[in-house]
Amino acid sequence: MNITVLGTGMVGQTVSKRLVELGHKVTMGTRNPDTTLSRTEPDRMTGITFSDWHKANPQVCLVTFSESVKGADLIINATSGFASLEVLELAGEAAMDGKVLLDISNPLDFSKGLPPSLFVCNTDSLGEQIQNRFPGLKVVKSLNTMNVYIQMNPGSLPGDHNVFVSGNDLEAKAMVKELLISIGWREQTIIDLGDITSARGTEMLLPIWVRLWSTLGDINFNFHIQRAK
Amino acid sequence: MNITVLGTGMVGQTVSKRLVELGHKVTMGTRNPDTTLSRTEPDRMTGITFSDWHKANPQVCLVTFSESVKGADLIINATSGFASLEVLELAGEAAMDGKVLLDISNPLDFSKGLPPSLFVCNTDSLGEQIQNRFPGLKVVKSLNTMNVYIQMNPGSLPGDHNVFVSGNDLEAKAMVKELLISIGWREQTIIDLGDITSARGTEMLLPIWVRLWSTLGDINFNFHIQRAK
Repeated sequence: MNITVLGTGMVGQTVSKRLVELGHKVTMGTRNPDTTLSRTEPDRMTGITFSDWHKANPQVCLVTFSESVKGADLIINATSGFASLEVLELAGEAAMDGKVLLDISNPLDFSKGLPPSLFVCNTDSLGEQIQNRFPGLKVVKSLNTMNVYIQMNPGSLPGDHNVFVSGNDLEAKAMVKELLISIGWREQTIIDLGDITSARGTEMLLPIWVRLWSTLGDINFNFHIQRAK
Repeated sequence: MNITVLGTGMVGQTVSKRLVELGHKVTMGTRNPDTTLSRTEPDRMTGITFSDWHKANPQVCLVTFSESVKGADLIINATSGFASLEVLELAGEAAMDGKVLLDISNPLDFSKGLPPSLFVCNTDSLGEQIQNRFPGLKVVKSLNTMNVYIQMNPGSLPGDHNVFVSGNDLEAKAMVKELLISIGWREQTIIDLGDITSARGTEMLLPIWVRLWSTLGDINFNFHIQRAK
């Protein structure tokens, strides 16, 4: 598939690299490619600059947001939650019309200090805000409830754990589920929660996720729904 | 222990019965015992009246909220979230001073239809509201993230699954953890998330819990945090 990843941070990098490994043609969208490539400060999480990452992953094409969505079979929103709506505006509503958007972002608000709160929750969600602003997009919320290394390599965390899917369009969800399975998620670990309003539930997992990070001392964990057999 | 259960609904009944089985002296608090005993409508969940339940569980003493907390070693808030603060006012701040309150309630708001939203979340929680209103109480939030049958008989759901604990007072949390273990929770399944502000995280699990109920078709499930060994 032609997959476009919006966002060039650690999440976008990890997602893009994995999708290249799986044989997809990956395009990364950014505000200004020259600016992104000329950044000299290393990423806080990876310790390397985007330019160095890009040299090591030359198959990934870096273009503007609006260029990146043209010809995409699937768009992945890997931007920070705060930036998501603005980035999608820059990508362009018309160019995205009818396409599938896999939204892996979270509405984390760090402006009031740590731990972060959510800037939208309870009676609304970022997934819904995106779907409502861009009704022509087929928004599927998924993968937003575990760290990106587990997202892209679920087998790296042994045992049973789940990934959730929310969205209004059944074909779009089927496409995303197929991608999840190709990434390594076993079919029985994928829980379809229903329409995009169920993104409220998965985005609202973030506050306990952040607490578990400090309690357990690392991010190498995921939610599993234990059910009676 | 002398344990007081505030609330006479299905949750209060199930909790009280289990604690009697474990050898505790259980007192139930209600607004007006005569009114509670004379209700003729059966409980929507259990199908029986409180009076019939009480005849089958005569060891449980039924008194007013304010009577019920006197002499209690532990108070359990099993009221609906909406009623919790009012019920605790009726119980009386002075009589509860210095005691441990195990808060198993959730701030579910059914006023806008189904699925319910939360009437407090994100930057506050019901657990915190109770702690802030009654600073002399040692509030421990726990057991609010699974159905009451699993709460009181965790072994009924096979496999690994967790119970969370939040609270400011270490001794109060130790008392609650000991109770959890006596109920059947294995020590390694109890996750202490820290102070009472972490109740935000567990209360915010309710929206996905409600969605999972409709997706999975029953309430016989619980959250498990899958960790790298």
